[in-house]
Amino acid sequence: MATLVLLRHGESVWNAEGLFTGWVDVDLSAKGESEATKGGDLLLDADITPDVLHTSLLKRAIRTANIALDVADLLWIPVKRSWRLNERHYGALQGKNKAQTREEFGEEQFMTWRRSYDTPPPPIKDDDPLSQVNDLRYAELPSELIPRSECLADVVDRMLPYWYDSIIPDLAAGKTVMVAAHGNSLRALVKHLDDISDEKIVGLNIPTGIPLVYELDDDFSPLKRGGEYLDPAAAKAAIEAVKNQGAGKGGSTAKPAAKSPAPKDERKPRRGKRR
Amino acid sequence: MATLVLLRHGESVWNAEGLFTGWVDVDLSAKGESEATKGGDLLLDADITPDVLHTSLLKRAIRTANIALDVADLLWIPVKRSWRLNERHYGALQGKNKAQTREEFGEEQFMTWRRSYDTPPPPIKDDDPLSQVNDLRYAELPSELIPRSECLADVVDRMLPYWYDSIIPDLAAGKTVMVAAHGNSLRALVKHLDDISDEKIVGLNIPTGIPLVYELDDDFSPLKRGGEYLDPAAAKAAIEAVKNQGAGKGGSTAKPAAKSPAPKDERKPRRGKRR
Repeated sequence: MATLVLLRHGESVWNAEGLFTGWVDVDLSAKGESEATKGGDLLLDADITPDVLHTSLLKRAIRTANIALDVADLLWIPVKRSWRLNERHYGALQGKNKAQTREEFGEEQFMTWRRSYDTPPPPIKDDDPLSQVNDLRYAELPSELIPRSECLADVVDRMLPYWYDSIIPDLAAGKTVMVAAHGNSLRALVKHLDDISDEKIVGLNIPTGIPLVYELDDDFSPLKRGGEYLDPAAAKAAIEAVKNQGAGKGGSTAKPAAKSPAPKDERKPRRGKRR
Repeated sequence: MATLVLLRHGESVWNAEGLFTGWVDVDLSAKGESEATKGGDLLLDADITPDVLHTSLLKRAIRTANIALDVADLLWIPVKRSWRLNERHYGALQGKNKAQTREEFGEEQFMTWRRSYDTPPPPIKDDDPLSQVNDLRYAELPSELIPRSECLADVVDRMLPYWYDSIIPDLAAGKTVMVAAHGNSLRALVKHLDDISDEKIVGLNIPTGIPLVYELDDDFSPLKRGGEYLDPAAAKAAIEAVKNQGAGKGGSTAKPAAKSPAPKDERKPRRGKRR
């Protein structure tokens, strides 16, 4: 038996601004940092001690994990990172405003891109400044492996090799494994774990910042389908909120263009170079 | 040819309070966080891009690296951690006030513990709350490998296997390697790199938060003895300041009990459990 802890990153600056993010390396908002802190508190309260951390290559997931593990006094555990845990690549929509995209392309097309299992958005061009083909962190990937756009089916395909080759060996060694990643890479993993159909996975949402814990049997299948959120009430409320958003305003799940405060990060200047 | 970047962690809360720290997992002070930020700025300005990070298991080194890499937009690089990069274990002196220790044991004994190459402080007892024998992070080490006290010679002995087995393979693969560690584990490494005698290493000090860059030849020996600090003027001033401290007040290098402000960490609560 082994324990798997899934942690979806907290709100990012672009989440707050209603922009499609995908593989663009956007930082956490102040709210996202608080969510990460709460995630760490929940781990502490539940007395769950991850032995190893797996993250994507995107800072919103990495920082969520760092903040949560710092709260839990576990900054020292081993870390492995992979592009295979990255968010779904949002193609040419990356950086675009969700509300404007809906207006421009119409509700049906918009919802197909957001929620269909196997229809990717239009591909991003390699010379687009928001493309990742020249991003240093993917320098070891041959160009054909760098996505130009992905549907959820694509994410399942590129995530699963990491699950089999890197995460399962840690679970097989009896470790408690934490995976800090993204809405869609975690949905891909949960689809596999809970054997959810292509149709049903479309309606599943994983709340941010609330650790989702699976106890797994010797075949790495969940003892309890769906696992358990460490704060079930908060998770339920967050899932309901997304559903209700979807019900209103023509079925859109896009947030209204929130008047979010400028992301406040008192911690340090951020002036990393664009690569 | 390969590039090695050494980064000593910024000031810790106990540095500021004049306490012996060793393997006790004390956090950075606010000043230490600023030093880490400056370290990241220096990497950016020098256009040095580590491909991989090695850290100790202590949060003051881990957080220094995280802050510096965040500034440099390199949070995503692979990380490896080892107890072999930890600070020198300060034995029974851990947690003790430096000035009081000097008074209690006399100047000569005090300086022998602090600066001799091969005289360790008295060993810490296994039932001391500041012992590490029951610390979860060393659970995979057999008890005889967990130090009860170390002199610098001991640090050289336990650090070198990591240099040979884990750092050199990364350098041999052509990677730019960053090592975020401690005053004494880095002195141990520099002693080896620059072939410094047991007598001379005692007088060498590595400033905090200023990356020290070595270009290495194919035998992993420095092209330039001593490497180069990314801010040579600040490094020189910091080294002089330590020397001048040593010259005054009976040769002690202990800081006066500084009236440091309470460590301000606006980032998140810290309430990790003691293990």
